[in-house]
Amino acid sequence: MSLVIPEDDNRLRHVCADCGTVHYQNPKLVIGTIPWWQADQQVLLCKRAIEPRRGYWTLPAGFMENNETTEEAAQRETTEEAGARVELLGLFALLNVPHVHQVHLFYRARLLDLDFAAGTESLECRLFRESEIPWQDLAFPTVSHTLQRFFADLGALTEGQAVPLYTLDIRKRLQV
Amino acid sequence: MSLVIPEDDNRLRHVCADCGTVHYQNPKLVIGTIPWWQADQQVLLCKRAIEPRRGYWTLPAGFMENNETTEEAAQRETTEEAGARVELLGLFALLNVPHVHQVHLFYRARLLDLDFAAGTESLECRLFRESEIPWQDLAFPTVSHTLQRFFADLGALTEGQAVPLYTLDIRKRLQV
Repeated sequence: MSLVIPEDDNRLRHVCADCGTVHYQNPKLVIGTIPWWQADQQVLLCKRAIEPRRGYWTLPAGFMENNETTEEAAQRETTEEAGARVELLGLFALLNVPHVHQVHLFYRARLLDLDFAAGTESLECRLFRESEIPWQDLAFPTVSHTLQRFFADLGALTEGQAVPLYTLDIRKRLQV
Repeated sequence: MSLVIPEDDNRLRHVCADCGTVHYQNPKLVIGTIPWWQADQQVLLCKRAIEPRRGYWTLPAGFMENNETTEEAAQRETTEEAGARVELLGLFALLNVPHVHQVHLFYRARLLDLDFAAGTESLECRLFRESEIPWQDLAFPTVSHTLQRFFADLGALTEGQAVPLYTLDIRKRLQV
């Protein structure tokens, strides 16, 4: 594999020296949910069992896979990481993290029951009221920003008002 | 390169037989704009100079690259394909095309001037009123659906009303 600019291109690409196949590398989508239990005003978070940020809390989310839609990815990750069933309520946030080549999408979601359970990538899953959120122990800036905006918008959302898509570019590296 | 399920995974991945590196393949983002010239109620389209769908009309759009944000990708593609300068006005559409492993995003955009010019991937770029759109000669279903919804929402948008993000899953293969 060598790094060259293909003839009809203007960027360095990984090209197979044997067969000439260009292996494009493009940003990946990380997709998750904000699972909300309206009766007790609680959000479901997962404590990560894997690196990076093992032991820190996150919203259920992960890399979108081929052959699925963004909504299917959101549902799948919520089931895989938190064993939870949710009804999706629309896209809430789009966050760019260009230095790690990622775009994060978070959907609002209604928890359908409380029979959740930590999946293999989670040490623990539990419900948090806004006052209980472990802000200092959240895994990623995208999760902190999304939760902050979610609680700021909660009054409007509870009244059934539409809120604009939350968009943010995060350019700073995570301090670990 | 061989197709195996890595130890901590549940899907087939391309793994280098020599070094064990897992080459993940995930959906790609295709990002573009709806460049609008308000004075004459016209949208800017490009006739494709490359396959697939050479000779058909499209909104300026292309694959998001590493190290950029979704908005930067939208601006870059609009400049590369149509030589046009735009001000972005917010995300308008998110369309899933799971059978080709793509997610398409289109931003509303205000054309800043009429000094546009076809880029190397376009045969021609020109402005169209709604009644002039070549609906039978559009390159992709994502472009047709986005333009249809854009014109349906145009009244509300012109009055400054917020419209919900247009989302659609396109599961049928393109008939060519």
